[in-house]
Amino acid sequence: MRSSAMRDLMAITARPEVISLAGGLPDTSTFPPATFAAQMTRIAQESAAEALQYGPTEGFDATKSAVRMVMDAEGMSPDLDDIIVTTGGQQALDLIAKTLVDPGDVVICEAPTYPGAVPVFSSYEADTHQVAIDGDGMRIDELEATCERLQAEGRRPKFIYSVPSFQNPAGVTLSLERRRRLVELARRRQILLVEDNPYGLLRYEGEPVPPLYQLDGGDYVIYVGTLSKILSPGIRIGWAVAPPPVMEKIALGKQATDLCTSTLAQYFALEYFGAGRWREYIDSLREIYRSRRDAMLEALERNFPRQATWTRPGGGLFVWATLPDYIDTSDLLAKALRENVAFVPGAAAYVDGRRGINSMRLNFSSSTEDEIREGVRRIGVVVSEQVELYETITSEHRLPESPGPASSGEVVPLRPPRRED
Amino acid sequence: MRSSAMRDLMAITARPEVISLAGGLPDTSTFPPATFAAQMTRIAQESAAEALQYGPTEGFDATKSAVRMVMDAEGMSPDLDDIIVTTGGQQALDLIAKTLVDPGDVVICEAPTYPGAVPVFSSYEADTHQVAIDGDGMRIDELEATCERLQAEGRRPKFIYSVPSFQNPAGVTLSLERRRRLVELARRRQILLVEDNPYGLLRYEGEPVPPLYQLDGGDYVIYVGTLSKILSPGIRIGWAVAPPPVMEKIALGKQATDLCTSTLAQYFALEYFGAGRWREYIDSLREIYRSRRDAMLEALERNFPRQATWTRPGGGLFVWATLPDYIDTSDLLAKALRENVAFVPGAAAYVDGRRGINSMRLNFSSSTEDEIREGVRRIGVVVSEQVELYETITSEHRLPESPGPASSGEVVPLRPPRRED
Repeated sequence: MRSSAMRDLMAITARPEVISLAGGLPDTSTFPPATFAAQMTRIAQESAAEALQYGPTEGFDATKSAVRMVMDAEGMSPDLDDIIVTTGGQQALDLIAKTLVDPGDVVICEAPTYPGAVPVFSSYEADTHQVAIDGDGMRIDELEATCERLQAEGRRPKFIYSVPSFQNPAGVTLSLERRRRLVELARRRQILLVEDNPYGLLRYEGEPVPPLYQLDGGDYVIYVGTLSKILSPGIRIGWAVAPPPVMEKIALGKQATDLCTSTLAQYFALEYFGAGRWREYIDSLREIYRSRRDAMLEALERNFPRQATWTRPGGGLFVWATLPDYIDTSDLLAKALRENVAFVPGAAAYVDGRRGINSMRLNFSSSTEDEIREGVRRIGVVVSEQVELYETITSEHRLPESPGPASSGEVVPLRPPRRED
Repeated sequence: MRSSAMRDLMAITARPEVISLAGGLPDTSTFPPATFAAQMTRIAQESAAEALQYGPTEGFDATKSAVRMVMDAEGMSPDLDDIIVTTGGQQALDLIAKTLVDPGDVVICEAPTYPGAVPVFSSYEADTHQVAIDGDGMRIDELEATCERLQAEGRRPKFIYSVPSFQNPAGVTLSLERRRRLVELARRRQILLVEDNPYGLLRYEGEPVPPLYQLDGGDYVIYVGTLSKILSPGIRIGWAVAPPPVMEKIALGKQATDLCTSTLAQYFALEYFGAGRWREYIDSLREIYRSRRDAMLEALERNFPRQATWTRPGGGLFVWATLPDYIDTSDLLAKALRENVAFVPGAAAYVDGRRGINSMRLNFSSSTEDEIREGVRRIGVVVSEQVELYETITSEHRLPESPGPASSGEVVPLRPPRRED
């Protein structure tokens, strides 16, 4: 699914009758309006002129300090000079690619990867290689083999891009052991890592795993963060942390691209972090999202055919479901939209758009538990119809000696068993 | 002056003891804090969750309607579908270049041009040609000759970039007759025009001149607008207007670059335009800026040596002053900063950085009249010192038969006459 189709999808899912499990939207409805009003009144009284004025390209020092406070909650403590405030994490990613990638340069990322990274890498004409993930995140053995193969061709990747915690779209988390190996690989091969960590603080179970930035100390890791998932995406505040030579180029790119990040938004964030209750707000989001994740996993268990598999994320916003390989989730989406439910087809998470076609990304942060249950039920219906249809067609055309369509050779029942059966 | 030096300059000029005539900052201090607070309280009460959430890549329809209202004030009425809301006018310019320019493509702009456009064109590796301006704006005869020369080489410009009204940095305005010829040239040669119009509504005298977009009807003109100079640069809201095939690509670029423009900022703007007093606010800015312009022109008359010339802008934010050609304003700036006053050296407005070295951009919107008078006085002192120094050196080394340093052949007095003399 290309970006234009993605935008069309987002437009369709804005219709109120549609249950959208497609977006990556946090739930902003729990942010207290009284807090919002109080913050803005204080800004109006104390610094209206400043909040309406241009700010420095790199962001205010106070904003950088707030960023460092957020990073400190995950064990990181960068120099303020190494931080640049960006218009969302998306701009950080764009500026990093703009800074580092010339046409034809190699970039390595996960398979699947963040769908919003695909058009960034494409726009700078990167030669993007995707490395498989499993339940413990990126396969470092495959990564090593990819680097080895590239090296034999005399090519070195400009960077390796990873969302190590509660990955978008797969929901998986890179294990500590693999993080150590990844950082070691980067240092040994002298390849930059770009760590994109929007969800690190949205953990619903288990112990935190240190970010790559912390393990590496910031020598080879360029870090991308955002307030989108822990405060608000509508303020468009993200950041990058990079060593000085890279930072200088990112700042020049930032200046040419949009001069500075909204000062109004920065003042809003400063008031918020100044009030000192931001950890409590994240705690409240974690409670809400944990229950929604549980609702989604239960609904999948109940409604998806047994041929489907899906991840069980310990945090973040997404579940990644994989259907039998004869189902194209882009086609399935058209049917799902007729049932007023939406998801992101898996192909959006692949550079070539030809992989992941039987997978889908399901978001559980922006819908209520009831909506999630109903949305997954509706998707389950269209998936089951597809499975049935396929089984019917293949059984009609099947010769008696055929082992059947399922790759395992199992005989697939006409109607998949349901949990309630 | 390259962008990194420009950023350093902006950092220095943030020091309170420095009178900065360098920036392009509007005066946001007159925006009423009570209005600010009331707007934000209403947003908090009625749409906090929406204002904190992601919005559509192209911007809200309501924002586009506000944009159209602003454009209507200058006689333009684009389709809402042709408008995209951007993170300031700077992003509009960046996305247009990203969409249209491949490395080596020709872009034509004015000489001097908006200093913020220089790094944009450079970053996409455009082959940028600059066409001279005079008191009536871009020289269309020179433009025609440039196009002719390029055509002989088999090259067609991707677009012609112009700030036709109260140009940044020169303050001049393209005459109606030249606007007609420019639009006619674009249509005849089938070259896109990019019209950047941040200051059109900031007219201090005379009758409005129709924008290129209005004259052309939007076939060949891509329009760039911004709320930075009529409301606030800190909200980072600009826009582009382009025909559908170009708009589709700009929107894809926008999505990859920062997903969407700050919804918080858009809601702020919507409340503001909804209140219906925006024309009055612009009127109040025009009063303030007109007086400041007058103060600057008087101060220049009083303090600059007679070898200097400068423009007399009918609107906008800038005066462009040109000194004798033996003065390098980048060197002069170092001296001026020691006197706690700053300006933008003219070279920043040229792609090759080797022209405009004896010119400077002076901003009159962000300082009080007293600051302007004192700032221009301080610059006048360092300019006069340079003129004196030059005269002393050249008179010492001058052979009797030398015609002297001034290109006109005039004998230059040791101390330039002052108005009060």
